[in-house]
Amino acid sequence: MQGDTNLPRRSFLIGSAGTVVAGALSARAVAQEKPAAAAPSAAPAAAAEAGNAAKPLPPYVAWKKADALIVHSSNTIETKRSAFGTSVITPMDELFIRNNVAPPPETTAGDVDAWEVAIEGVAKSRAMTLKELKTFGVETVATILQCSGNGRSYFKHKAKGTPWTVGAAGCVVWTGVPLREITKELGGVLPGRQYITGTGGEPIPAGLDPKSMMVERSVPVEALDTALLAWEANGKPIPHAHGGPVRLIVPGYFGVNNVKYIKTLSFTEKESDAKIQSGSYRYAAVGEKILVSQTPVWKMPVKSWVTQPLQDAQSGRVQIHGVAFGGAKAVSKVEVSTDGGKSWNDAHFIGPDLGPFAWRTFAFSADLKPGTYLITSRATDADGAVQPEDTEDNDHGYGFNGWKAQAVDVTVA
Amino acid sequence: MQGDTNLPRRSFLIGSAGTVVAGALSARAVAQEKPAAAAPSAAPAAAAEAGNAAKPLPPYVAWKKADALIVHSSNTIETKRSAFGTSVITPMDELFIRNNVAPPPETTAGDVDAWEVAIEGVAKSRAMTLKELKTFGVETVATILQCSGNGRSYFKHKAKGTPWTVGAAGCVVWTGVPLREITKELGGVLPGRQYITGTGGEPIPAGLDPKSMMVERSVPVEALDTALLAWEANGKPIPHAHGGPVRLIVPGYFGVNNVKYIKTLSFTEKESDAKIQSGSYRYAAVGEKILVSQTPVWKMPVKSWVTQPLQDAQSGRVQIHGVAFGGAKAVSKVEVSTDGGKSWNDAHFIGPDLGPFAWRTFAFSADLKPGTYLITSRATDADGAVQPEDTEDNDHGYGFNGWKAQAVDVTVA
Repeated sequence: MQGDTNLPRRSFLIGSAGTVVAGALSARAVAQEKPAAAAPSAAPAAAAEAGNAAKPLPPYVAWKKADALIVHSSNTIETKRSAFGTSVITPMDELFIRNNVAPPPETTAGDVDAWEVAIEGVAKSRAMTLKELKTFGVETVATILQCSGNGRSYFKHKAKGTPWTVGAAGCVVWTGVPLREITKELGGVLPGRQYITGTGGEPIPAGLDPKSMMVERSVPVEALDTALLAWEANGKPIPHAHGGPVRLIVPGYFGVNNVKYIKTLSFTEKESDAKIQSGSYRYAAVGEKILVSQTPVWKMPVKSWVTQPLQDAQSGRVQIHGVAFGGAKAVSKVEVSTDGGKSWNDAHFIGPDLGPFAWRTFAFSADLKPGTYLITSRATDADGAVQPEDTEDNDHGYGFNGWKAQAVDVTVA
Repeated sequence: MQGDTNLPRRSFLIGSAGTVVAGALSARAVAQEKPAAAAPSAAPAAAAEAGNAAKPLPPYVAWKKADALIVHSSNTIETKRSAFGTSVITPMDELFIRNNVAPPPETTAGDVDAWEVAIEGVAKSRAMTLKELKTFGVETVATILQCSGNGRSYFKHKAKGTPWTVGAAGCVVWTGVPLREITKELGGVLPGRQYITGTGGEPIPAGLDPKSMMVERSVPVEALDTALLAWEANGKPIPHAHGGPVRLIVPGYFGVNNVKYIKTLSFTEKESDAKIQSGSYRYAAVGEKILVSQTPVWKMPVKSWVTQPLQDAQSGRVQIHGVAFGGAKAVSKVEVSTDGGKSWNDAHFIGPDLGPFAWRTFAFSADLKPGTYLITSRATDADGAVQPEDTEDNDHGYGFNGWKAQAVDVTVA
């Protein structure tokens, strides 16, 4: 979920984690890891689903629903496009998994309230237990959790990294304390602090440069208005595999910015110099190295995709379903094409609107004669930005949102 | 979930179901049934939770989260007041259970689309499979599912029946086809049809008068505007224990009207003459027999309750949480009292609003010194109806929504 890339530091970790890192990710699970970078693929969604269906879930997420997921590796598990259903919330046992490094040891239920987060860069910096954090207030927000590499397999240049199709994303209801309530309590953010920097609690093996592998991400301080320190996902304690007991939620920002197992929340003058911030998760031109001068993967752009039908349908009235979101703002419109984008029809949104950071499900009732159809969708956000036909290539394959490559071939009989 | 009462026919079924009814409710589960009518109780919530915590889940709902539930009997299982958490949706594995009769045999995943519902009382009456129903459109709605007996233990007259406290209720996101789309397809509702009558698919043992035990409920035809034939709950196929593969959802109406395993959906001139409609689930004065002249348990009234803290708290800033709903309309306001209703403070709603039929979670931040407090909440609906201090007694103990008896004693140290 922490976005997604395959860096040398990660291969190192994979080789050594079994012996040096204690945690829920067992040695066996780590050993199963096959860096997806070795086998990039742009196979169509249906083929990818069929081809990977048999790979078993790693033990630390054995509680997940295997038939709803595609296991790329033990750290990269995708929701099948056919599994999103028509309800707005993604059940936790069908939500994708993306870990950059092995998680800390699992906090047992009884210890959860003792989890400490150091709050820094405020007038009265100090550490707080989850028990105390819970006294400052509570808010619930539905957000899209989306790996920045979601859709990577659709880029033309065969970007390195996990060949996600559409399923490294989900819509989750988070409950936690608003950061703004904490900063208020602690005398406010210090002047000149331009970033919110979160540091995950993943242990760093001895002898390694912590900056080379720590999960420490910075986002603009404006996110203070909506960010939470969350302890519940979909009404239950956040599962360990998804960052519990406490996870930073930055609504509208790509997954990697939603730091799991958060131990330090700091208001900083500069972005973190950890490699995951400075040397990765930025938009670099194809073939270029990532530099701090490039734009980080922060806010998500407008996007949608069809979830049904994906292969075939019966002639007559066919309900075309999908999900659409504005990313960092509400989605205002979605259109469906059954001819690969030559013509478009307005779809209608379904059911409750869970707010600007959630996705909305949509439906379009098409009257289809027997034949073949190329079905796709195109969303428009509240500012009028339209989901593009293609997304410009970038070296690591981040931020894909093109409607053309996501189209599905459907045979109507 | 089908509301809740204990009628003689039910005792009969319980005695014979093990041999005559094939279904998910095994003979062993049925044998464990102890009619709650034998032991009505008005014990406070905390004591009820503690006292029942050890009773095991019956096998047909072994997938539920035991520590979130109070097992009254194999057919009556309540969500603990402490389990509602702060998110708006109730996870299916924590949702209460109320079965009136043993369910039909479980439909396996592969057969689900072949489930048939007969649609009657329309110009072109006919049966439809779930597969066909899915072609008519889709809608998602969040509703309160609440047993009409929820809160029965708070009535003064010791009503017979399961001694529910607050937990025979939950907020669920349903996905299905709007009834209005089906009636449009079938040429419209016939003139003079004043009711929507749903019949469940529970098998009737040979030799019994079907009317004495069938689950067949009628609601006013005005519910056509919002009712669904639903196949998903919280984004997944509706579990068999909750009425899957297809359940009638009537937003704003008590649980019993949301017919499980629906086999017939008929627009009728009169209410059903099945006993569950004519001789039960109506508001009768204490000591009176239920008659068709009495008001049925249809629309739910405004209600709320505190979910945290329930026993003790640390002095200082205490977050008081709860849930509130208007029932058949939106909730507009909720107040919290820490002195048993002598004074009231406005609470604020938390998180996304899932629409008028959902509940909203609320919070009030109280500054509490050491001492004892009597904490409760009082909601107001969109029409200005205020949750009452007490609910007038009725013979079967339906529709409780008083704020006084639901108050919790909290010790602040």
